[in-house]
Amino acid sequence: MIRQRKLGRGVAVVGAGMSRFGMFSDLDAKDLFIEAYRAMLASVDKGVGPEDIDALYLGNFSNDFFAEQSHWGAILSDALGLVPKPASRVEGACASSALAVREAVFAIASGFYDIVLVGGFEDMSKRTTEEVAAGLALAASPDERAAGFTFPGVFGAVATAYFQRYGATCADLWEVTIKSHQNAVLNPKAQYRKSIQEIMDGKVEKSRSRGLPLPQWQDERAFLADARANPAIAWPMHLFDCSPISDGAACLLLVGEELARSFTDDPLHVAGIGQASGRSLSQADDLTSLEASRSAAREAYAMAGLQPSDVQFAEVHDCFSIAEILHIEDLGFFPAGEGYRAVTRGETRRDGPMPINTSGGLKCKGHPVGATGSAQLVELWEQLRQSAGPRQIENPDLRVGAAHSMGGTGGTCAVTILERR
Amino acid sequence: MIRQRKLGRGVAVVGAGMSRFGMFSDLDAKDLFIEAYRAMLASVDKGVGPEDIDALYLGNFSNDFFAEQSHWGAILSDALGLVPKPASRVEGACASSALAVREAVFAIASGFYDIVLVGGFEDMSKRTTEEVAAGLALAASPDERAAGFTFPGVFGAVATAYFQRYGATCADLWEVTIKSHQNAVLNPKAQYRKSIQEIMDGKVEKSRSRGLPLPQWQDERAFLADARANPAIAWPMHLFDCSPISDGAACLLLVGEELARSFTDDPLHVAGIGQASGRSLSQADDLTSLEASRSAAREAYAMAGLQPSDVQFAEVHDCFSIAEILHIEDLGFFPAGEGYRAVTRGETRRDGPMPINTSGGLKCKGHPVGATGSAQLVELWEQLRQSAGPRQIENPDLRVGAAHSMGGTGGTCAVTILERR
Repeated sequence: MIRQRKLGRGVAVVGAGMSRFGMFSDLDAKDLFIEAYRAMLASVDKGVGPEDIDALYLGNFSNDFFAEQSHWGAILSDALGLVPKPASRVEGACASSALAVREAVFAIASGFYDIVLVGGFEDMSKRTTEEVAAGLALAASPDERAAGFTFPGVFGAVATAYFQRYGATCADLWEVTIKSHQNAVLNPKAQYRKSIQEIMDGKVEKSRSRGLPLPQWQDERAFLADARANPAIAWPMHLFDCSPISDGAACLLLVGEELARSFTDDPLHVAGIGQASGRSLSQADDLTSLEASRSAAREAYAMAGLQPSDVQFAEVHDCFSIAEILHIEDLGFFPAGEGYRAVTRGETRRDGPMPINTSGGLKCKGHPVGATGSAQLVELWEQLRQSAGPRQIENPDLRVGAAHSMGGTGGTCAVTILERR
Repeated sequence: MIRQRKLGRGVAVVGAGMSRFGMFSDLDAKDLFIEAYRAMLASVDKGVGPEDIDALYLGNFSNDFFAEQSHWGAILSDALGLVPKPASRVEGACASSALAVREAVFAIASGFYDIVLVGGFEDMSKRTTEEVAAGLALAASPDERAAGFTFPGVFGAVATAYFQRYGATCADLWEVTIKSHQNAVLNPKAQYRKSIQEIMDGKVEKSRSRGLPLPQWQDERAFLADARANPAIAWPMHLFDCSPISDGAACLLLVGEELARSFTDDPLHVAGIGQASGRSLSQADDLTSLEASRSAAREAYAMAGLQPSDVQFAEVHDCFSIAEILHIEDLGFFPAGEGYRAVTRGETRRDGPMPINTSGGLKCKGHPVGATGSAQLVELWEQLRQSAGPRQIENPDLRVGAAHSMGGTGGTCAVTILERR
């Protein structure tokens, strides 16, 4: 039996915004958070200023490692003109800002604060790829690391187990990739805004301009199957299965529900929140499903009084293509072993019955790890309010969206359900 | 006018425990947290087990830097048998676990959870002193760091400003040190359990046993004034003005107030919480008082409906001797410029009218930074429940104690007031 946890006070989202995601040699975490904050301010229909904000919550994985500066709560509180308002950083590896959002929800639901700014950021691109890989690996469990795994290796093992159990292949995973790129083409803030077809055509054109022999890819699937175009990183994880190194920030404005109409006539309701911990994969009976995802989802559904079938679209933590497939099964959108078939059938496309990662996902929107959980909620905000522009899901009755974040290999997972009423 | 913030549900402390503090080459953060957890379990009068706990909050500054492992929420959740219960890490430099306690309070007050384990830890001693200094410096503001300051330097500047303004001297600061050592002698978990007199006598004995000329210190004050015994680190901060490098952990069990009697007949009430951010010292008009301390204290007093004069004893963040003096003024226990006089008059001794840092403080109990905020509350728990053993404040009517934590040079401050009813 699932215990139904409730909040003593409802919480609403009344604003949301994000910076561009990408690799920005001239922007640091402060610049990016201010960019996200300004986008958030512009999204609040009836306006808000720093004087209205009671407190700041920040998700960040490890800017102390990536940018050699910690204690960002104090820095950003000052930069946004919020001093002496309190600021706390929350960390749960790549789920950090989803966890920060939960703390902001609790702070309001407790009655202590009314209006809370919450967001996340990561500034990763000033380090070498090797350094970033080493920094990210600190979030893996000690025995995963002792076994020599970095994250592409861990998710390679997860994919191999999934293939063995359910008969999926690399080609199935690349359907996730193709979809993510198609969605990101329509997201002006995404890091990669080209479809696989465009990337392929670009490479052909480059060969032509240099007078080199032209690659003979028949279509984008053939391109992804070519080991020169899409080399294996840790088989079966290839280059195009992996999310990139990114800089970026995102934030939301949360308020006590009874105050929401002072900020907008179209607030979103925080219908469900769930968070759970999981054991190291070395102790897992089954690599193809994450206990923490399932548990966090159960908690969020129970609070919301909703079923998986009530969720109309979702952003899930696709740090690797295989992860997206695991998560859409663990969240109950598809039965175990059916996720890859649903993807291949096009059901998770923007025009399918269960759109997944309309933002482009971590794969193409980008994955500044501490920003990701908040950025997923920015996409929910835009889709639910019918303001996602050319990538808007064509459903005028969009009411319920879910976001799923994962830290490590499922050591921490969080699920947030937003509802438009 | 101070806004009086309130919680929708009262929160009680029903257990508290800490590990030994010190430098332990054979213990890591997990070992230390388990030690603290067991001490906490033993403190819960009517018993509690992992199955009762809904969620875990952890304060930690930077074990990713100090021990090259992050994502400790997942590790400790597993180690304590709590999986799939959620675990979140909270960071606010050296105030980290005071911030974690606030989040635990909000999580319960929100109605979402009933029983929350909250604590903090830091495992610092496996790095060299130079590396620890560099790691800690990441918590200073960017312009403090750009100016070449490490923390002893910053607090040296603060002390110089205080001396200039109020006429205090190094000898006044050393009264803080003498008191801290006297208290720590009575704390079996403290890192330094010798009085200055004992340390001095030990050095004389060492010289005697080696046949060296005997030092001619007349008393402990002469010892501290001897630059060979107590060298300047960053004048006027000398060796004995500085807290040490420490390993340790501490934790508390918080529950919804209406549930407290299921755990103990003598719970403590979370009467007031306050947290605030401050600007970099480079922007401060006055180095002798921290805006964030004053603001956090105001918030906590307002919630509790108490005045500074209602607080009977306190643990304050004495990372450096001068910091203790600033904080006892900023918390309103003494007027500005009077704190050092009160210390010199013995008013903050264990047998004085306003005991400060009966645990030995950060200076002598030790300062594993992420554990410190929780460990301060462990001292409040023991004192308020008359269970502090030989260092018990001799007042059978001890009802109200306060803890104050500081991150950086006041970038983040938090105040927690506990009350026995």
